Amino acid sequence: MENKNQVYIGTSLDGFIADENGGLEWLDMVPNPNNEDMGYYVFMDKIDALVMGRTTFETVIGFDVDWPYKKPVFVLSSSLGEIPNSHQGKAFLVNGTLEEVLEQIHSQGHHSLYIDGGKTIQGFLKEDLIDELIITVLPVLLGGGFPLFGSMKDKLEFELIESKVHLGQLVQLHYKRKRG
Amino acid sequence: MENKNQVYIGTSLDGFIADENGGLEWLDMVPNPNNEDMGYYVFMDKIDALVMGRTTFETVIGFDVDWPYKKPVFVLSSSLGEIPNSHQGKAFLVNGTLEEVLEQIHSQGHHSLYIDGGKTIQGFLKEDLIDELIITVLPVLLGGGFPLFGSMKDKLEFELIESKVHLGQLVQLHYKRKRG
Repeated sequence: MENKNQVYIGTSLDGFIADENGGLEWLDMVPNPNNEDMGYYVFMDKIDALVMGRTTFETVIGFDVDWPYKKPVFVLSSSLGEIPNSHQGKAFLVNGTLEEVLEQIHSQGHHSLYIDGGKTIQGFLKEDLIDELIITVLPVLLGGGFPLFGSMKDKLEFELIESKVHLGQLVQLHYKRKRG
Repeated sequence: MENKNQVYIGTSLDGFIADENGGLEWLDMVPNPNNEDMGYYVFMDKIDALVMGRTTFETVIGFDVDWPYKKPVFVLSSSLGEIPNSHQGKAFLVNGTLEEVLEQIHSQGHHSLYIDGGKTIQGFLKEDLIDELIITVLPVLLGGGFPLFGSMKDKLEFELIESKVHLGQLVQLHYKRKRG
């Protein structure tokens, strides 16, 4: 099985994934009367598991909705003692280096991974461990907040696979890492 | 005449307009054998004048090419004493608040302006003085450098006018400020 780490995320035009207060309302700034899913379900169908940090995990738990994932969620955290009872069997705590974590997840048969959350994505990018990026750009400058990308020592080149406009306003950019 | 302040610029996927060393080589990372201009000449034709900061002005002067602009260039600077002799009559020093500077430029009959350079663009955006953004996104994460966007107190919503792919790899996003 080919191992593949993928990002699927929405950002503001200035590259933030949440505003200064962690707010996400701006993600719904463009009316979506027919609940267009923008390729999310096709993407979720293709992945075997999710990997996210504690912040994203706790944000999702905090949403006033049922647990939204049908695939196992691996929570990267050294500070979270354990997964709350309510989410046992759905979410699994992992820690160690990213290499160790990936080995552990792959050994359980999960090869196509959805890497989610700012810090986690930045950590994976720093070690050049992201293979595909699907970024949906919203038409707003937030002016501050939690950035999608962080500083890196080396530049990383990508190849544009596709660019699509959703709802007339959201530009979805699909990139594949260009290696070698 | 309608006054219009426009940005036309290339950025990395992580929002930088120059790398850590001010380098711009990555702007040529995608082969362009037929010298596609990506709408630059049509854009330059429509504007009456350019407004840029000292850094951008000195960068352009430093390029090993002839002066590239047919339109007057207003250089926003309080530190530059005067425009070098070589560029008198082509570039003009302006200073004061952006409001004062714009009044001065408009009064000379220049209404459609190309606002260029990171700090200048950020200054204009902070005062909500940008009407259109044409941003060409290159498929690379630089990991650091000079950012296109800076922090702002208020968020600014835009409307997507068009999204185009150039050379199969560069995504050009055209936005209009959504006001009121």
